[in-house]
Amino acid sequence: MRILITAGPTREYLDDVRYLSNASSGQMGYALARSAIQAGHEVALVSGPVTLSPPEGCELYPVETTDEMFKQCEKLFADCDGVIGTAAVCDYRIKTRKPGKIAKTGEAITLELVETIDVLAELGTQKGDRWVMGFALESQDARFNAVRKLYSKKCDAIVLNSVSAIGSTENHVEVIDHSQETVATYSGPKAQVADSLIAWIQEHIAAGK
Amino acid sequence: MRILITAGPTREYLDDVRYLSNASSGQMGYALARSAIQAGHEVALVSGPVTLSPPEGCELYPVETTDEMFKQCEKLFADCDGVIGTAAVCDYRIKTRKPGKIAKTGEAITLELVETIDVLAELGTQKGDRWVMGFALESQDARFNAVRKLYSKKCDAIVLNSVSAIGSTENHVEVIDHSQETVATYSGPKAQVADSLIAWIQEHIAAGK
Repeated sequence: MRILITAGPTREYLDDVRYLSNASSGQMGYALARSAIQAGHEVALVSGPVTLSPPEGCELYPVETTDEMFKQCEKLFADCDGVIGTAAVCDYRIKTRKPGKIAKTGEAITLELVETIDVLAELGTQKGDRWVMGFALESQDARFNAVRKLYSKKCDAIVLNSVSAIGSTENHVEVIDHSQETVATYSGPKAQVADSLIAWIQEHIAAGK
Repeated sequence: MRILITAGPTREYLDDVRYLSNASSGQMGYALARSAIQAGHEVALVSGPVTLSPPEGCELYPVETTDEMFKQCEKLFADCDGVIGTAAVCDYRIKTRKPGKIAKTGEAITLELVETIDVLAELGTQKGDRWVMGFALESQDARFNAVRKLYSKKCDAIVLNSVSAIGSTENHVEVIDHSQETVATYSGPKAQVADSLIAWIQEHIAAGK
């Protein structure tokens, strides 16, 4: 198979220096890329700014903003069999980015944030006979929100992980499919969880396509 | 001498996941720490989240927010002979941090940002007979703003660098002192610029104390 994987955070700039982001390290996405290549697949990895090196044999497409990630993914998805969306994209961007560096004035400033494009939901809409696996990071009503995202993003399955996964080398995940039940649970180092998830994808959502 | 050095970015959180930050890599501060230790000084390095390892023999104090950086610096400054402020601190924090992860609703959201404490200006106010070297990163009216900061932060000298220095391994800097003139200019890899700056500090602002 040829698999599209998104990884890392994205950044949304206020001005030329300051941005909105999150502490996603990209480890889960890079671990999945490595596992997929080891399992004999091709991987196109679209990654926000992280400090990891891509696994050997992996095509890397570095991006910075959510919009850049979407445009790169849309181009690549056409030639892929499926997509795994691990990226912790910025859901919000600053409505009006200022040039240069906003100088301090002693006053409070007000920023208007608007939602960015939902990368995985857009790919889900375009998926046709390709499979889509999402990741959901939820701080409350986790299962309810994961199932909601499974449908709204037109995923075949969604991986639920907790806020504690960000930046950690370990992960504890549940895979939820259209049965709305947890159909697999994996814990341990992200490399090991990645192997299990690639095997699960091969056996379940990719097998039926 | 015992030198306090601040380095890296700081982060200011909107909620438990998203934050405001910048792409400061910490390279200039870590290079200065290395140069200072090689020149026989002690270094206390207060650093925001970066991926660098501190030089051997350096005391590292990791912090995340601007307020944490200030509190840590204030504690350490009492026992230091001077401070070099290279950190690209978040000048703004979100007025009301939300618990958990703000869920998307499809609506725009408005954030009120208030200024954070000015770490170097506070240390400048407390400096007594210690020396203070600041860094200014300016996108416009660079010299004017650098001189303004030299006085407002009670620095003995200020190093002016441009936005292009962020995340780069190279730097081009000008040192401005109370003459309001550029009294030294250094270009090249940050490690080399750091050696020159430590030598300059020893010879000029630290010598007179």
